[in-house]
Amino acid sequence: MTKPPMTTTTTSTSPQPASGGEFDLIRRHFVRPHTWGAHVVDGPGDDCALLAHTPNTLLAVSTDLLVAGRHFFTNTDPTRLGHKSLAVNLSDLAAMGATPRSFTLSLALPALDDDWLAQFSNGLFALAAKQRCSLVGGDTTRGPLTIGITVMGEVPAQQALKRSGAQVGDVVFVSGALGEAAWALDVLNDKPVACGIREQSTPQQWQQALDRLEQPSPRNELGLAVIGIATSAIDVSDGLAGDLLHILNASGAGASINVDALPCASALSTAPADYRRQCCAAGGDDYELLMTAPPDNIALMHKAALSCGVAITPIGRIHAEAGLVWTDAFGRNLTTTFQAFDHFLPHL
Amino acid sequence: MTKPPMTTTTTSTSPQPASGGEFDLIRRHFVRPHTWGAHVVDGPGDDCALLAHTPNTLLAVSTDLLVAGRHFFTNTDPTRLGHKSLAVNLSDLAAMGATPRSFTLSLALPALDDDWLAQFSNGLFALAAKQRCSLVGGDTTRGPLTIGITVMGEVPAQQALKRSGAQVGDVVFVSGALGEAAWALDVLNDKPVACGIREQSTPQQWQQALDRLEQPSPRNELGLAVIGIATSAIDVSDGLAGDLLHILNASGAGASINVDALPCASALSTAPADYRRQCCAAGGDDYELLMTAPPDNIALMHKAALSCGVAITPIGRIHAEAGLVWTDAFGRNLTTTFQAFDHFLPHL
Repeated sequence: MTKPPMTTTTTSTSPQPASGGEFDLIRRHFVRPHTWGAHVVDGPGDDCALLAHTPNTLLAVSTDLLVAGRHFFTNTDPTRLGHKSLAVNLSDLAAMGATPRSFTLSLALPALDDDWLAQFSNGLFALAAKQRCSLVGGDTTRGPLTIGITVMGEVPAQQALKRSGAQVGDVVFVSGALGEAAWALDVLNDKPVACGIREQSTPQQWQQALDRLEQPSPRNELGLAVIGIATSAIDVSDGLAGDLLHILNASGAGASINVDALPCASALSTAPADYRRQCCAAGGDDYELLMTAPPDNIALMHKAALSCGVAITPIGRIHAEAGLVWTDAFGRNLTTTFQAFDHFLPHL
Repeated sequence: MTKPPMTTTTTSTSPQPASGGEFDLIRRHFVRPHTWGAHVVDGPGDDCALLAHTPNTLLAVSTDLLVAGRHFFTNTDPTRLGHKSLAVNLSDLAAMGATPRSFTLSLALPALDDDWLAQFSNGLFALAAKQRCSLVGGDTTRGPLTIGITVMGEVPAQQALKRSGAQVGDVVFVSGALGEAAWALDVLNDKPVACGIREQSTPQQWQQALDRLEQPSPRNELGLAVIGIATSAIDVSDGLAGDLLHILNASGAGASINVDALPCASALSTAPADYRRQCCAAGGDDYELLMTAPPDNIALMHKAALSCGVAITPIGRIHAEAGLVWTDAFGRNLTTTFQAFDHFLPHL
């Protein structure tokens, strides 16, 4: 999920989320050894669960919880918040190659505010209409502003894009551009480096970054287009470094990634290299797709992306040795690693 | 959903939730005129949405959000809270006659507390195992303690128990006993009448009431057993009066209910009549099933209930005129009405 307004991602010498963090917590308490019945094709551990559905499709299900002051500023424009609440869930469907079908909405609200609700629902339904994803149920209650969405989609049986499919030799691709959302968040949090870059940027560059943070575009068309071409996929929500590790761990492989090949927003192109790399490699909130595909499919990958009007960039390769190796534009190994956002680790 | 610890349900002269309340809010902002695609068989407005699924079944989906200090006391035993979080969702499946299959869990936690999580997950999984309902995905984040569950089940096509199926002449049934959860909540909130009753009750009676509040038993077996026999069903979560109105409004009918026929926990049998009626008719949090069935099916209803080890009680009849008429044991019409819990109306 998205990164909280009051924290920032830090670099770390640890390539894995530390013990005691969010992922360890999930594993320890909520991953149990079995499920009941044959209807669960894949349980926790991917962008979506996959459940038996129609004769030719699986049901992909994902859920995300957005908490005010944690995932978004309390004064965020409600229309944009409505959009983003659904977008981050649709992004999980995109990462599985699933077609959005329906969603449920749970809302805890401090009070009834007709204007706020009108704007929130307008933003929500505008994206729902665009993706033909129907609101089918929900729950409202009084409480600290919290938005819970569970989204459901359909994916052809046997063709879901799973995290576990990456093969040694595969090329790693990422869609669109990275880093803008992280930069915008840093500006809103008054981080000096980020504010300095804003002073150098054009109003259009700043507005685009703010749009990326507050109104991201899930890559659902791309996820569908690379079915049968890509071997694995995940959406970039917690930062590319951490999200790629999920693919590597699930696939039992490693990767070498050129940090300077990461597609970077133009406003960040003149930023200090360290800051630019940090935003692109670990910034989170990008909702781009990170994908792997065999070299023979490179042309097909680009053709699929072109058909969706989205650029994709090759950024590295999958190799057999476990772990994520970062290189620079000159092929030199970097000692710095980048850490994914973890809701339960301390942050600066 | 459940009733908040810090409020109590009040009587009212209005038989409908007032404008500006929770249901009106949902209608105004979140019920849009259309859905996309043929996969949504029934959208918002029942205990579950019904989606196209396998050739012979529909997918029933429901979601509930539980907020600390609102739906449960912050110091509630975590094992019981884990149980209840799933139970209130399973109860929605029961009300549709759907077999539980899987659920997602979203958790906002103020901090990582290993003990708390171990207990919470144990309570959750104990009920999940009993109902063979698999946890398939989730999301954890830091935030005010909030639990969001979306549950999915399967129901035979054309046989879901909907709110809209009640027919004029049908008998209204309710399962189990009512009022204990409301009484227990009032005791925990130090309401004098409730505390007086506790002083007269046995430790077993009090423990049973506390169990009902904190660890309710969803009536999933009963929901399945009355498929094809009952014409409509809803679970009693916000109070029988309000929940029955959902059936009446959806079915375009009215009902006459004998308030003194409501099955009442033994501890409340000697309570002041007004308080007993209030707890049973509007107390909420009971998670019993309210059902309608034609007179010809009375014997079948009792047989179905017997097969599940649950009592059911006939409490009134469906009639053509809109509205809910309360009578007493002597058949006299009451002027008092009972109001369902509404999260956004002021409460004492």
